[in-house]
Amino acid sequence: MSGSTLGTLFCVTNFGESHGPAIGCVIDGCPPGMALTEADIQHDLDRRRPGTSRFVTQRNEPDAVEILSGVFEGRTTGTPIALLIRNQDQRSKDYGEIARQFRPGHADYAYWHKYGLRDPRGGGRSSARLTAPTVAAGAVAKKWLKEKYGTQLRACMTQLGKLPIVFESWEHVQHNPFFAPVADVQRFEDYMDQLRKTHDSCGARIRVQASGVPVGLGEPLYDKLDADIAKVMMGLNAVKGVEIGAGFASVAQRGSTHGDALSPQGFASNHAGGVLGGISSGQDIEVSIAIKPTSSILTPRPSIDIDGQPVEVVTKGRHDPCVGIRAAPIAEALLALVLMDHALRQRAQCGDVRQLPGSIPASFSA
Amino acid sequence: MSGSTLGTLFCVTNFGESHGPAIGCVIDGCPPGMALTEADIQHDLDRRRPGTSRFVTQRNEPDAVEILSGVFEGRTTGTPIALLIRNQDQRSKDYGEIARQFRPGHADYAYWHKYGLRDPRGGGRSSARLTAPTVAAGAVAKKWLKEKYGTQLRACMTQLGKLPIVFESWEHVQHNPFFAPVADVQRFEDYMDQLRKTHDSCGARIRVQASGVPVGLGEPLYDKLDADIAKVMMGLNAVKGVEIGAGFASVAQRGSTHGDALSPQGFASNHAGGVLGGISSGQDIEVSIAIKPTSSILTPRPSIDIDGQPVEVVTKGRHDPCVGIRAAPIAEALLALVLMDHALRQRAQCGDVRQLPGSIPASFSA
Amino acid sequence: MSGSTLGTLFCVTNFGESHGPAIGCVIDGCPPGMALTEADIQHDLDRRRPGTSRFVTQRNEPDAVEILSGVFEGRTTGTPIALLIRNQDQRSKDYGEIARQFRPGHADYAYWHKYGLRDPRGGGRSSARLTAPTVAAGAVAKKWLKEKYGTQLRACMTQLGKLPIVFESWEHVQHNPFFAPVADVQRFEDYMDQLRKTHDSCGARIRVQASGVPVGLGEPLYDKLDADIAKVMMGLNAVKGVEIGAGFASVAQRGSTHGDALSPQGFASNHAGGVLGGISSGQDIEVSIAIKPTSSILTPRPSIDIDGQPVEVVTKGRHDPCVGIRAAPIAEALLALVLMDHALRQRAQCGDVRQLPGSIPASFSA
Amino acid sequence: MSGSTLGTLFCVTNFGESHGPAIGCVIDGCPPGMALTEADIQHDLDRRRPGTSRFVTQRNEPDAVEILSGVFEGRTTGTPIALLIRNQDQRSKDYGEIARQFRPGHADYAYWHKYGLRDPRGGGRSSARLTAPTVAAGAVAKKWLKEKYGTQLRACMTQLGKLPIVFESWEHVQHNPFFAPVADVQRFEDYMDQLRKTHDSCGARIRVQASGVPVGLGEPLYDKLDADIAKVMMGLNAVKGVEIGAGFASVAQRGSTHGDALSPQGFASNHAGGVLGGISSGQDIEVSIAIKPTSSILTPRPSIDIDGQPVEVVTKGRHDPCVGIRAAPIAEALLALVLMDHALRQRAQCGDVRQLPGSIPASFSA
Repeated sequence: MSGSTLGTLFCVTNFGESHGPAIGCVIDGCPPGMALTEADIQHDLDRRRPGTSRFVTQRNEPDAVEILSGVFEGRTTGTPIALLIRNQDQRSKDYGEIARQFRPGHADYAYWHKYGLRDPRGGGRSSARLTAPTVAAGAVAKKWLKEKYGTQLRACMTQLGKLPIVFESWEHVQHNPFFAPVADVQRFEDYMDQLRKTHDSCGARIRVQASGVPVGLGEPLYDKLDADIAKVMMGLNAVKGVEIGAGFASVAQRGSTHGDALSPQGFASNHAGGVLGGISSGQDIEVSIAIKPTSSILTPRPSIDIDGQPVEVVTKGRHDPCVGIRAAPIAEALLALVLMDHALRQRAQCGDVRQLPGSIPASFSA
Repeated sequence: MSGSTLGTLFCVTNFGESHGPAIGCVIDGCPPGMALTEADIQHDLDRRRPGTSRFVTQRNEPDAVEILSGVFEGRTTGTPIALLIRNQDQRSKDYGEIARQFRPGHADYAYWHKYGLRDPRGGGRSSARLTAPTVAAGAVAKKWLKEKYGTQLRACMTQLGKLPIVFESWEHVQHNPFFAPVADVQRFEDYMDQLRKTHDSCGARIRVQASGVPVGLGEPLYDKLDADIAKVMMGLNAVKGVEIGAGFASVAQRGSTHGDALSPQGFASNHAGGVLGGISSGQDIEVSIAIKPTSSILTPRPSIDIDGQPVEVVTKGRHDPCVGIRAAPIAEALLALVLMDHALRQRAQCGDVRQLPGSIPASFSA
Repeated sequence: MSGSTLGTLFCVTNFGESHGPAIGCVIDGCPPGMALTEADIQHDLDRRRPGTSRFVTQRNEPDAVEILSGVFEGRTTGTPIALLIRNQDQRSKDYGEIARQFRPGHADYAYWHKYGLRDPRGGGRSSARLTAPTVAAGAVAKKWLKEKYGTQLRACMTQLGKLPIVFESWEHVQHNPFFAPVADVQRFEDYMDQLRKTHDSCGARIRVQASGVPVGLGEPLYDKLDADIAKVMMGLNAVKGVEIGAGFASVAQRGSTHGDALSPQGFASNHAGGVLGGISSGQDIEVSIAIKPTSSILTPRPSIDIDGQPVEVVTKGRHDPCVGIRAAPIAEALLALVLMDHALRQRAQCGDVRQLPGSIPASFSA
Repeated sequence: MSGSTLGTLFCVTNFGESHGPAIGCVIDGCPPGMALTEADIQHDLDRRRPGTSRFVTQRNEPDAVEILSGVFEGRTTGTPIALLIRNQDQRSKDYGEIARQFRPGHADYAYWHKYGLRDPRGGGRSSARLTAPTVAAGAVAKKWLKEKYGTQLRACMTQLGKLPIVFESWEHVQHNPFFAPVADVQRFEDYMDQLRKTHDSCGARIRVQASGVPVGLGEPLYDKLDADIAKVMMGLNAVKGVEIGAGFASVAQRGSTHGDALSPQGFASNHAGGVLGGISSGQDIEVSIAIKPTSSILTPRPSIDIDGQPVEVVTKGRHDPCVGIRAAPIAEALLALVLMDHALRQRAQCGDVRQLPGSIPASFSA
C-alpha cells in the first residue's frame, strides 16, 4: 500500500494539502450498523481546531466535516465512509519566499528532493493540518471501541518546553488550552507569551492512555500492538520519541521491579504499559511521546535555497509556536485507530477462542 | 497481511518457535542479480548468536543458515529467498512448570489469552530466538544497500542497566561482548557478574545508525520513514522506547536550536536524526532504543497460573540476564530492512525524479 | 486492506453510493511531475456517462470531476489525488419497494445478509455508478502509461446478447453508442429496441486490448499480471467470465498450435494474449469478458422479501437494459490500473535489470 | 506485498524452485486450536503428486511434507505454520539447452527479460511444481472450513482437449487418473496415448465447486469474492480463462432467465454460481477454468535464444502432456484459500451482524 493509508482492516486513506481546496479521508472497513452522524465526529475536530486560543495558530478554520458516503439513515453500512473538510482560510501569499527556500528542521528539503517538486503553500502535504482527517477517522474508531468494549481514550500534556507537568487529574485537561492535567496553567501562559516575544518555539511531551482495552490485541511477530502504536505516534508531525509504559526508564530498572506482579485481583503495577509480548494485557495502554519545537519561526536561520545557494530564512505566515499544544486529541485518535484495527484483526483470527480462566477482570487492573 | 510479515515490497515472513524443529524466514521481493551465499548471511547470525560469552544465554546453537530458494548459481533470481535454521539445543523439560504459569512481565499471559493455548517451550513464538531470521533477512538487505548506495549500518550499547556509556569510537564495538563503543569494559563485566548473583536482570540502551542513506526515502502521510523505523524497533522483543535524532531531549529544545541549519556544505548538526517530514534527508539516520530487563529471572515473583490461582514463579532454563547485550546486530538488521523496503518504494514511485540542485552531498553531512 | 482499495503501489480507494451526496476516489502513489487537469479525466468519464443514447439508463449525470488534492500548478505532486463527483440526478423514491425485496440476480440479497442493512437507493454501493471513480482513476493511469511507454488502451463490444460481432476496425468504436468495431450498428439498435419492448435485458461480451506494454510486468507466483487482470475484470459489476488470449478456446488447442512461435522479428501469433508465465511479453495484452444481463428488469420475477416471505419483484427506476454497452471505457480503465500498478512494482524490484539481448522490439510483435 | 504471498488475513507465502533443494510455504493467520498433523495435508498432496499414472510426468517425488512450526501438541497455535517439502528427483542435466532458449508459449522468455536471469532447471520458479505448497496450504484451509461451516470442496475435469465430458457423478472422480466425473475413461486413455505419439500436448477444462459456503463472504468494491476467485484461478499455471456460474453463456441469456428466482425454499437455479454482487449467497460456488496445452513438447518449434538468434526448440525432460489432468486438487485448494481468507475478513468486519430473516438455509439451495 502507498503511504497515505493506515490500517489493515480498518483502513484510513488521508488526502489533501494545507492550502488546497479540501482535506479529508476515506474510512474503509468500519463495521456496519453503528449510529453515526457528523456531530459524533465534529466534537473531536473542534478540540483539535486552530484559532481557539492565543497560544496556537490564528488560522481560522471551522473544520466542518461532511459525510459523503457509508452512512444510510444514520447508521454505518459497512461501505467506505468518506469525510470531507473544505479549507477556508488559506493565505497562500505568505509563502512566496518559502517556496524557494528550505526551513531548517522542516520537511521542505526532503519533499523537494523526494518528489522533485512540492506544494509550498502552508507546508502543503507536510502540514499538521492533515492531522484533522486523522482525528475525524479516530472519532469513528473511538465510538465503536466505546460501544463495543467500553474503551476510553485520553491524552494530556506532561511537559511544555522546559516545564515538567506533574499529573493532578484528568478532570483538568478539558478546562485549559494546553490539555494540561493541572488546575493552574498560569505558568504555561507566561512561558508561551515569553516564547513568542523571542520569536522562537518549544516542544512538548504528551501522555496518551486507553483504558478498557480487551486482552489479546496485537499480532506478533512484526505487527505487535506496541509496534503499531509506535508507528502511528512517530508518524505524527514533529514527534521524535515514543515510549510504552516505563519507556526509557526501564533501562535502569531491575527485572524484579519492572515485571508487573499478578494476583487473582489483577496486576500490581503497570510498567508494561498494557502490552506484553506485543499483545494487550487488559491493563491501561500507556504511551508517551516527545514533540519537537516547531521549525517555522520568525528567528532568522541559515539555510539554502532550491538552487543550493545560502539564504537566511525567516518564516512568516501563521504557525503554532508549540504544535504539542494541540496534539492531545490527535494522539488519542491515532491510538484509537490502532486499537480499532487490531480489534478487528483479533476477532478475524481468534474469534472462536473461548473465555479462559486465568483472566483478570479489566476493572481490577492497576 | 498477518503479523509475521514485514515490509511492503521487500517482504520478510518469519516463522518458527524457540524449541520447534526449525526457525526461518522467506524474503520476497529481493532485486535479482545480487551475489549471495550463506556466508554473507552467517556473519551477522554469528554476531547475534547465543553462548558466545558468559554474559548471555548458554544455549548452544550454531544457527547455521541454509538457503532453500531464490539463489541460482550464486545470484539472487528475484524470486523468494527461503532461509532455514534448524534448532539444535532445545531443553524443553526446563519449561514444565512455566507451561501453567504466567511470568510477570512476560508474554505468557497475553499469548494464553489471545490464542487460548501456547507453546511454552523456551517462550515459544515470543522468544527472542525469533530475531535470528530477522537478522538473516537484514543481512541480505544490508548487502544490497551497501552495494547500491554505500549505506553502512552500525549499532552499539549506550547504557547498561544504571551505567551510562559515553561513546568513544565505533572501532571498539566489535572487540567486546557488550557491543560497547569503549575500550574498557571491565565495569560492565563486574556489573553483570553482580547481577547474576542477585538472580536478577537489567535493561540496556542501544544506538543504531545508518550512514550513506539516499535522500528521499519514506512515504508520508502514514508510512513515514521514522514511523516505520519506530514500528520495527518497538516490535523488537523487550523494547519500550524509541527515539529518532534528539528524541525526548527535543521537548526542552528551542526551535532555533533543534532545526539543523543548512549551508552549501551540508547540515550543521543532526538533531533531526536524518529524517525530515518523515523522509530521509541524506544525513545519518540516528535511532536510540530502550530495552527493558529480562522477565525470566530466578528471583521468585508473585503471579497466577492458568486457572487463576496465585503462584510464586521462579524461572529456570537458560536466559539472557540482559537481552540488550545481543541487541545491536538485531537493531542494525531491523533498520536495514526498513531502509531497503523504502528504497524500493521510492524508486517505484519517484524513479523518474531527476537529480536536483539544492542537494547536499551525503559525504558533507554532519 | 479492506475491499475498496485497488493496487499495491498505485492505489485507488473508491467511495460513494448511487444516491448519496457524492462518489469519488483517492489515488495514492501516482508518480510526481505529470501534467494533469480535470480535462484529462473528464474525457473518459464522458465516454462512460449515462444518458447519452436511448440504449442506456436515462439518468442524467454530468459526472463533472473535481480534483481536490495532489496536483499543484498543473502537475502531480506525488501525494494523494482525491477526485470528487457530486451525484445530481437521484430519484430515490423509485426504490421504495425494492428496499424490502431481493431482486433475482441482484446484489440485494447478499448485501443484506452480509451487512445486516443496506442502502437500497439505486443499488447503493452495488450500483454500476461506482465504476465512474474507477474510470477517473484509470484516466490518470492511462496518461502516465502513454507518456512513459506509449501504452495504448482500447476496448470494444464483440457480442451483444445473441448477436456476435465480427471485428472490422477500431476506428468504428467511437462512432456508435455500442462501442462496436463495425460500421453498421442498425441491427444492434433493432435488437435493443425489441428487448426493451419485452421488458427484459441482455448480456454482452467485451474485448480489451493494451498495446505498447513493456515486457516484464507481473509478479509471480500469485500476483501474476493475468491474475490481477482477471481479478479486476471479474470484479466489474455483472462480469461472469474472463479470458486472456485464446481463453477457453485453448482447451481444444494442441501445444504445437497454442505456443506462439518466436523469431528475431517477433512473435508469429498471440494465443498467449501478451502474458507468459504471468509476466507481460511485450505483445498486446488481449482480454475478453462476459457481462451478464441486467438483473433490474420490468418483467415480474418470483423472489422473497427481507422477512423471508414470497413476493413478485418488478424493478422500476432507470436501468441499463444491457450494462455491457457502457462497459468498454470501464474495462480499459481497469486494465490500465493493473498495468500501472505493475509498472511501478516492476521498477521497484527490477529497476536495475539492464536491457538484454533476446528482446523483441514491441513494434514487431504480432 | 510482493507477489508470492496470497491472502489478506490467511496469508500463504510460497517459496522454491522445481530443482532447488526444497519447496514450501508459510501460512500466517490460521486460527488457533485446530487439530492438525502432516497426514491432514499429505492426503491432498498425494492427489496432486506426479508419477501416479502414465498420463502425467514421470518425475518421482514423494512430496512428503514436514510441519516446521505453528503446531504444538497437535493443535495450531495461531502462529505461522511453515511447511517444507524437499525436492528429491531432480534431473537438471535435461535442461542444458533450454537454459539458452525460449520455449514458445513458456515463461522462459518473460522471466529472462523481467529478472535478467533465470533458474532454467525444470522451469525453475515457473514450474507447476510450485503448486504443491499451494495444495498443502489449501488442505489447512479446507479442514478449517469444513469444521467451522461444513464447507466441501470438489473439482473434476469437464473437457480433455477436444473431448467434452458430460457430468455423471462426483463419485467417479476419485476412481480415475483424469479426475473425470464419469465411469468410463477409456477414450481419455486412448486420446492421451495418441497425443503422446504425436509428441504434442492438449488442454483441459476443470470445474470447481464449493458447497456449504456461508452467505456474506466477499468485500466489494474491488475485493469481491468472485474477483479474488478469478485472480487465484487465472494465476494457476497454464490457465487462460475463468468463469463463475453461467460464465460466457450468460452473454446470450436474458435477464429473466439468468437472474435466479428465490422462494422461501431457496434459489430455483444457480446461474450466479453462488456469488451476487461479489458476495457469496449461500449457494454452491461454481467455477470453471480453461487450461492451455503444455508448452514443453517434443515437437520442434521455431524460437530464438538469449542472444536473439533463431533456433529450433525441442523440449526433453519429463513433462505432463496435459497439466490439466492434475489440476483438480490444485483448483480446490485455491478456492479453499480464497474462501478461508474471506471467512476471516467477514467476521472481522461483520462479526456482530445478527442472523437475519430472509435467509435461505444453505441445504435448500439449488
